[in-house]
Amino acid sequence: MEHFEKTVSSKDIFNGKVIHVTHDEAELEDGSIAMREVVGHPGGVCIAALTEDDELLFVKQFRYPYKEVLVELPAGKLEKGQTPLENGKRELLEETGAVGREYMTLGKLYPSPGYSDEIVHLYFCKVDHYEQQSPDEDEFIDIIKIPVNKAVEMVLNGELPDAKTQTAVLKTAMLLQNMKVKEL
Amino acid sequence: MEHFEKTVSSKDIFNGKVIHVTHDEAELEDGSIAMREVVGHPGGVCIAALTEDDELLFVKQFRYPYKEVLVELPAGKLEKGQTPLENGKRELLEETGAVGREYMTLGKLYPSPGYSDEIVHLYFCKVDHYEQQSPDEDEFIDIIKIPVNKAVEMVLNGELPDAKTQTAVLKTAMLLQNMKVKEL
Repeated sequence: MEHFEKTVSSKDIFNGKVIHVTHDEAELEDGSIAMREVVGHPGGVCIAALTEDDELLFVKQFRYPYKEVLVELPAGKLEKGQTPLENGKRELLEETGAVGREYMTLGKLYPSPGYSDEIVHLYFCKVDHYEQQSPDEDEFIDIIKIPVNKAVEMVLNGELPDAKTQTAVLKTAMLLQNMKVKEL
Repeated sequence: MEHFEKTVSSKDIFNGKVIHVTHDEAELEDGSIAMREVVGHPGGVCIAALTEDDELLFVKQFRYPYKEVLVELPAGKLEKGQTPLENGKRELLEETGAVGREYMTLGKLYPSPGYSDEIVHLYFCKVDHYEQQSPDEDEFIDIIKIPVNKAVEMVLNGELPDAKTQTAVLKTAMLLQNMKVKEL
């Protein structure tokens, strides 16, 4: 039998700039009722951008929920009126100044299926050239270049805990390995 | 310079069973003030449990925020008074009935650093034997076994979008590859 839960009621809790929280009653498949806490999110995009020296572009920034400085792949929230890929190109440019070419999808990521509806679209590209960086006014970020092999090592060593970064770095490494295999 | 943001005020928005939402004012490094929306979460655990036939145990369940049935590695929220590893053993047993051995860490995962403080602890283990499955009363789950290589393929094909699942499956595949290399 296919599993399902049906919304019985949904109460708005918080309408923020980023998240929208609701507290729902759901009818389960046995007819019982369970409460579900849901964080609504516009979705996001994350880009693994490869330089001609086989490095990936990372951003280093303070992440308020963790009170920690994290190194992550460039990423951002989806803005209305743009496709995920257009959002990806915009975020990469804003955060790093890089303009990419040969974009490829690395799939979607569901960060926290228990309580959030966020979907992050992952992309790979090659850096074509650089223009002017223009981060949001409340973003203070450093740009770091890390060789792909070193980035994989950092994922395995726990130095890059961000979910989208771990997934996109490992997928990029596998993609490049396959490309090399195909070139042989 | 090291980046930082300092909490100026924090307003409680919602105290749920799973999440705790606050709306904070933060002072940025240039002295300006920005609003930060934060989802507090107790943290979680996720286990890649390998059978003697080189399959991983997965659970298939309805995920309310996405209104979708997802296939994920066994996982759950951290409970107080237990270490992350103890939580992992408990969740694996509850959701699949499996008891593991040779547990190894696969690192930590920060699902959504922009707004959530959740940390998911990832583990690998081998299935030692099976006991009685006992999922939570509001959980309806099927157990599925998928060969590791097939699971990697499904991650790359987009069939396993869950972040902890993608990361732990790819790390498990790399771990097993290294073990085989070492055995040679």
